[in-house]
Amino acid sequence: MSVFDEELHKLKDKLLKMGALVEDAIRNSIHALVKRDNELAGRVIETDRIINMLDVEIDEDSIRLIALKQPMAVDLRFITTAMKITTDLERMGDLAVNIAERAIELNEEPILKPYIDIPKMRELAQGMTRDALDAFVRKDKKLAMDVIMRDDEVDDLKHEVLRELAFFMAQDPTTVSRAMKISFVTQYLERIADHATNIAEMVIYLAEGKMIRHAVPHHEA
Amino acid sequence: MSVFDEELHKLKDKLLKMGALVEDAIRNSIHALVKRDNELAGRVIETDRIINMLDVEIDEDSIRLIALKQPMAVDLRFITTAMKITTDLERMGDLAVNIAERAIELNEEPILKPYIDIPKMRELAQGMTRDALDAFVRKDKKLAMDVIMRDDEVDDLKHEVLRELAFFMAQDPTTVSRAMKISFVTQYLERIADHATNIAEMVIYLAEGKMIRHAVPHHEA
Repeated sequence: MSVFDEELHKLKDKLLKMGALVEDAIRNSIHALVKRDNELAGRVIETDRIINMLDVEIDEDSIRLIALKQPMAVDLRFITTAMKITTDLERMGDLAVNIAERAIELNEEPILKPYIDIPKMRELAQGMTRDALDAFVRKDKKLAMDVIMRDDEVDDLKHEVLRELAFFMAQDPTTVSRAMKISFVTQYLERIADHATNIAEMVIYLAEGKMIRHAVPHHEA
Repeated sequence: MSVFDEELHKLKDKLLKMGALVEDAIRNSIHALVKRDNELAGRVIETDRIINMLDVEIDEDSIRLIALKQPMAVDLRFITTAMKITTDLERMGDLAVNIAERAIELNEEPILKPYIDIPKMRELAQGMTRDALDAFVRKDKKLAMDVIMRDDEVDDLKHEVLRELAFFMAQDPTTVSRAMKISFVTQYLERIADHATNIAEMVIYLAEGKMIRHAVPHHEA
């Protein structure tokens, strides 16, 4: 393996490490909500620092790699895409922090109803995150396309949850504050899935040079 | 001016052009809401294509510039930051589209109440966008810092709007569906301001190599 390949390999490893931390943060933030576990929510907020550090590190490593090794176009594209992906991952970490913050607030009030669709959304969003990163490091177009397809399921679940919350609020005004916070959580999860979709679109663009990146507009709410 | 400087200049111009279109989209999406103007909302949705095209173009121009000119570290950092900024701008354009979509839905129902704080949020978010980009092309650290400071005002206004919407929903169940849509609009605006803040943080990082990028966590809701 050349020195350059070795450095590129290290970059991929660091990106996957960052991705694994983001996955943990997504899982733990929703567990903190469902199990009403403030300690776990606190841990999500705490761990975000490490995610942020990795974002900066990967940026620095990438710049250094480009400046010193002057990679060919295909490698250059891979590295600049990695730099964009870390930005997405960092924001996903922030969204997990937002979920953890809402969980702590919701834990101060009686439970509104058992969470059913939100854990499903979490599982989908987390799987999309993992697969989008795998698709990137393995340059797997098919897997990236599969991630993009799953985004609709997340949106459908979100609509389901929002409909239900609207019903609660219309029936009983005392539920409004809690229902709004839960609606924010569903939107954070939707945005996490959107970031995973963005990563998957970049993977396809990288592989094909095609404008899939903007072929499908991101509809929300 | 060297050929490289000329190319860099063109890149900045294209980025500013993209920024101006995003600013228009933000302004028009909220005008469409406030003035109940479906035609204007449609135009925001339509124009997003051009924003998306510019995103891809700037990426391509940047890659080409790095590959052919092998710029020095300081210029390399500037160009890779431009590539990250276009990603933010593209997402801001998507958020303006989301606002336009909610505006069209809200226009089908009677008006809930006159919009007062949302136009203020719009003005702030739009000004932050313009100044963040100006700060980038002029490498103006002070202006970037000023953008970051303004993010709190946007959050305060959002809380104000959400409090008011919660009050409406608790008083009158028939307002729930409209109030939820308006709450989404405030969140889209908040995210637009977050993107502007992210850009400003990157400008400071570029100027100082300091980790301001993650010094202030992005609290939401």
